[in-house]
Amino acid sequence: MKKVTVGVIGAGNIGKLHINNLKRNKNVRIKMVSDLFADKLEKWFADSGVEEITKEYNDILNDEEIDTVFICSPTNTHATLIKEAASKGKNIFCEKPISFSDDETLEAYKTVEEAGVKFQVGFNRRFDKNFAEIRKRIGENKVGDVHIIKITSRDPNPPNLDYIETSGGLFFDMTIHDFDMARYLAESEVVEVFAQGTNLVNPEIGKKGDIDTAIITLKFENGALGVIDNSREAVYGYDQRIEVFGNGGAIVADNETPTNLKYYHKNAVETDNPLHFFLERYNGSFISETEQFVESILNGNETKVVFNDGIMAQRIAQAAKESYESQRPVKVDNEIGG
Amino acid sequence: MKKVTVGVIGAGNIGKLHINNLKRNKNVRIKMVSDLFADKLEKWFADSGVEEITKEYNDILNDEEIDTVFICSPTNTHATLIKEAASKGKNIFCEKPISFSDDETLEAYKTVEEAGVKFQVGFNRRFDKNFAEIRKRIGENKVGDVHIIKITSRDPNPPNLDYIETSGGLFFDMTIHDFDMARYLAESEVVEVFAQGTNLVNPEIGKKGDIDTAIITLKFENGALGVIDNSREAVYGYDQRIEVFGNGGAIVADNETPTNLKYYHKNAVETDNPLHFFLERYNGSFISETEQFVESILNGNETKVVFNDGIMAQRIAQAAKESYESQRPVKVDNEIGG
Amino acid sequence: MKKVTVGVIGAGNIGKLHINNLKRNKNVRIKMVSDLFADKLEKWFADSGVEEITKEYNDILNDEEIDTVFICSPTNTHATLIKEAASKGKNIFCEKPISFSDDETLEAYKTVEEAGVKFQVGFNRRFDKNFAEIRKRIGENKVGDVHIIKITSRDPNPPNLDYIETSGGLFFDMTIHDFDMARYLAESEVVEVFAQGTNLVNPEIGKKGDIDTAIITLKFENGALGVIDNSREAVYGYDQRIEVFGNGGAIVADNETPTNLKYYHKNAVETDNPLHFFLERYNGSFISETEQFVESILNGNETKVVFNDGIMAQRIAQAAKESYESQRPVKVDNEIGG
Amino acid sequence: MKKVTVGVIGAGNIGKLHINNLKRNKNVRIKMVSDLFADKLEKWFADSGVEEITKEYNDILNDEEIDTVFICSPTNTHATLIKEAASKGKNIFCEKPISFSDDETLEAYKTVEEAGVKFQVGFNRRFDKNFAEIRKRIGENKVGDVHIIKITSRDPNPPNLDYIETSGGLFFDMTIHDFDMARYLAESEVVEVFAQGTNLVNPEIGKKGDIDTAIITLKFENGALGVIDNSREAVYGYDQRIEVFGNGGAIVADNETPTNLKYYHKNAVETDNPLHFFLERYNGSFISETEQFVESILNGNETKVVFNDGIMAQRIAQAAKESYESQRPVKVDNEIGG
Repeated sequence: MKKVTVGVIGAGNIGKLHINNLKRNKNVRIKMVSDLFADKLEKWFADSGVEEITKEYNDILNDEEIDTVFICSPTNTHATLIKEAASKGKNIFCEKPISFSDDETLEAYKTVEEAGVKFQVGFNRRFDKNFAEIRKRIGENKVGDVHIIKITSRDPNPPNLDYIETSGGLFFDMTIHDFDMARYLAESEVVEVFAQGTNLVNPEIGKKGDIDTAIITLKFENGALGVIDNSREAVYGYDQRIEVFGNGGAIVADNETPTNLKYYHKNAVETDNPLHFFLERYNGSFISETEQFVESILNGNETKVVFNDGIMAQRIAQAAKESYESQRPVKVDNEIGG
Repeated sequence: MKKVTVGVIGAGNIGKLHINNLKRNKNVRIKMVSDLFADKLEKWFADSGVEEITKEYNDILNDEEIDTVFICSPTNTHATLIKEAASKGKNIFCEKPISFSDDETLEAYKTVEEAGVKFQVGFNRRFDKNFAEIRKRIGENKVGDVHIIKITSRDPNPPNLDYIETSGGLFFDMTIHDFDMARYLAESEVVEVFAQGTNLVNPEIGKKGDIDTAIITLKFENGALGVIDNSREAVYGYDQRIEVFGNGGAIVADNETPTNLKYYHKNAVETDNPLHFFLERYNGSFISETEQFVESILNGNETKVVFNDGIMAQRIAQAAKESYESQRPVKVDNEIGG
Repeated sequence: MKKVTVGVIGAGNIGKLHINNLKRNKNVRIKMVSDLFADKLEKWFADSGVEEITKEYNDILNDEEIDTVFICSPTNTHATLIKEAASKGKNIFCEKPISFSDDETLEAYKTVEEAGVKFQVGFNRRFDKNFAEIRKRIGENKVGDVHIIKITSRDPNPPNLDYIETSGGLFFDMTIHDFDMARYLAESEVVEVFAQGTNLVNPEIGKKGDIDTAIITLKFENGALGVIDNSREAVYGYDQRIEVFGNGGAIVADNETPTNLKYYHKNAVETDNPLHFFLERYNGSFISETEQFVESILNGNETKVVFNDGIMAQRIAQAAKESYESQRPVKVDNEIGG
Repeated sequence: MKKVTVGVIGAGNIGKLHINNLKRNKNVRIKMVSDLFADKLEKWFADSGVEEITKEYNDILNDEEIDTVFICSPTNTHATLIKEAASKGKNIFCEKPISFSDDETLEAYKTVEEAGVKFQVGFNRRFDKNFAEIRKRIGENKVGDVHIIKITSRDPNPPNLDYIETSGGLFFDMTIHDFDMARYLAESEVVEVFAQGTNLVNPEIGKKGDIDTAIITLKFENGALGVIDNSREAVYGYDQRIEVFGNGGAIVADNETPTNLKYYHKNAVETDNPLHFFLERYNGSFISETEQFVESILNGNETKVVFNDGIMAQRIAQAAKESYESQRPVKVDNEIGG
């Protein structure tokens, strides 16, 4: 059978994660990984299942055997890398968000469209078994017309302060997953956003110009409403819950836990805290997103998260940012022509 | 409207409980209460809603206005009191168990039958909203043919050692409720019992000749099996759960709790312990059993827990005791003729 | 013991409910009820436990034995009745909302203050065992500093269209309970509101100028954020859930159900729908609010829901209305002086 | 790194399952599989990751490269195969039960002891994340002294009737897993068994001389009691629950489900049925048991389920069978000397 030959740009946590998952797929050859700090990665590389390591991402782009590129470098490099990779005819898996600028993203989009390569954004949560099942049941009309979508998304602890600076801020870094989930479940575009945000977790985050606690109200094209609540720190763990309410009923997804045990003792009945963080919680969806991306390439199917999904999530994040700054609801443009 | 005029024999915890519940019923007049320690009950009596207090239960039996007697004295007095009360034409509500002897119980039964008075045994759990609903759904064929009935029944802490001595032992004192529940849910008689018991909670209980931990297997006339597990001490509270399994499905009743709150903190997610003990847990069913008993008298309907229910629960307890002692399964005779 | 002698103005559903609960309280004498349609209430009155019925609420206000008035008439009569009752020195229990106008409410407030009578607003949900326990645990610092309060409040079905017209709209009629709950749990005033609303349940509601689906974002004085989601129709029943999230953890209150049974069948595991509507769901809190009000009068304690609570909830509702209409966040004035 | 070279005897469902899991382990080479119907397995074999297929299990035993044998053939061949494999110095993983005869099993045991090879029995449930965590917490004294162990174990549907005949009966085929789990959790030997069984699911099973519904009471050496309830058919799916109760509390393991969604609709709140059957439910524990077995070989550690575990589970099954037939409690001999 034909194999997909992959190069991975960026060997940070997320790059390593994808490599580890790609390694399990017998239809994938991981030919090369590039990283600016390649020389510090020797130990990891030895056992990584990757054939070559380089400091130069161009080694990947120029390798004719490599047909598929995973872009796992910092966000501010994504758009350029997409354009370069697409020009070379590579299929592209790009981590979220595509960029912080709609113009850059649209340019990258055009190159990809022209090149006709496969493209997928790393919105892995769409592949979570619980959330995918919600979407499936919405399609089966289990909740009727959707009226309200509620997403709770709270991290177990804030990222370090250096990361905060380059993260693009809460809406681009964290909420962007929730924006994508909202669109995915609503099967309708977000047309307006109102974002309320504040700095309650750690004053240092505020000093960096970011917020750590937010409530964002969404209005969808089909008339439904949505609300997302975010915190950078839930002391009990990674809190990821979703609720879809419609005129036929409601579906609620709860947190996943290490075990399902109930422990009855003198003072209370205890159950497990949620799985710690995204590596644990979305382990299955990370695996599934790469598997389905590889499958799309091999069978020529459309990917499950297309370029447009990246554009729209980014625009909603931008609108949220503007809304938070202006304290006004902000419209979201859903015409790609923009 | 006609009123029921009640006399209560025995003003211990359970007698007071019934008085308190009867007081809420506008169709009931509580004319008299008798207790050997009447002189120590002045304070309670002042606010009890009862008209008279006496040391002499005969004052109640001889009072012509009193048409209904609640027997809340120690078990070894029940049979005699039933006979005397029935001879005087009083309706009778008797606490469980009726007696420790099948012969005594049958004699009492005959007197009641001859007198044609209303009679109810205090198996209040039949009136619990959860358990009553299980029975209702069994009747609606929700579980199909019943194959297995499982009852978990654990007290929060053991009774004092003096009580243990006069209690009749675990099977007559505690499991008797579960035996009644098993019959009630199975809608079939128990034909055989095997009881495994042991003394794990407190060695003093063993010295009194009783056990504090038990597993009892039941065989029903309709072919179903049952199992009860008991403990005199569950440190997390009163554990009262039931499960009915059949070829159409299963129904499970969980514990009731003070609130339904979930508290997520650093170490676990906590929910409430079960309601503390029978006064809290079966508060509603105690109220309901007296209301329905009063209603039976006023409207001439059959009571919800008839004399036969008392006889059979007692026989199963007796069989369990014999089984535990002989370590053999023991048959239960279901012919009242004996 | 001293008794509270009550007159009830308005014998609609809520008036009857309070009468029924007051009847259980042995420290209460319900001397009179007034209703415009008194002549249609004969049957109910016969069994109501109330001594007299009248068409004229002035009969109540002029009765010197009556020391306490329950105002259960339509909202647009509340302010006037409060002023008249206070002038006569009556203690007042007034259904929510106090009025639709801040000026009217403040006037009534001043009269009550001058008269020095007891006053309580009918925010019964504060007395719900689950919600009261959340508040208690917040006080015990179980969630640390409160960051986010989330309230889900959905009715099982919309009121009839005639009622919609006089209801004051969703925010004054339905969300007002949630506004009070938000303040109660935050222990902090709401300083800003943004309300997103829409008409998805029934177009006829829209034609009456009202909405039936809403998401309202709140900002509290202490920096916390809040969000309420409302719907006039949840097909699965009355959906009343609350979540409080802070830097020490989170507490979640789920719906209450008729039983706790789990039914396993071929296609799913089923549990009960929520208790149907407010009469069932808040039965206990309706009882408790009147008991505690009566207790406040008898013992001279402050009531649990004071006039200020009525004023503030009303102002938040007003701000929500303005926010919805202007699509801007709207400030809430928390100075009573106005 | 050293590799383990495996031969698998028997390519039925369970043999294929192990091959599939072994294939994921980079320290394992699966050199050969034998099956009487090897010629019908071509299609599966092509993609199996196994190097050779044969009809002759002796090809495996005689292959000098193969150091480890998985015995996945019918139970009546296990003892002989163990002896032959051990004589050849192979490490052995043997499916449960080891045999239907204590003598045969003890003979096999002696050969294994003399050969000094690694041996593991296929009690995969010990590796289930929930059950392993219960055991861990018992070790941490979370439940104090264990008083009662309860195991619910019900299949979603009965095996076909041909299988019933060679299965050794319910106790040897199905309950044997529960017997092992009981010993594992109690950390104490079973000293006495009472088994109540019946034929309620399908009369054809009764005609084959087997039962399909059972309740088995256990007595442990340390004084604790245990109870297992079995059914060959739970229409709602594979029901696998465990509860351990002690003087410090209780721990309950519930079923695992495909998703954690709650679906609220007009008639009920629905959650998922349990995962269908053992392949789904114990997928993780099957993977883990082979991984840990391989790890034991590579690092020279003791296996997690030793020969003695196989012997004891089998003896309890034998005692249960005798108890069911004689309707008497039956002692279990825990001396290997026999």
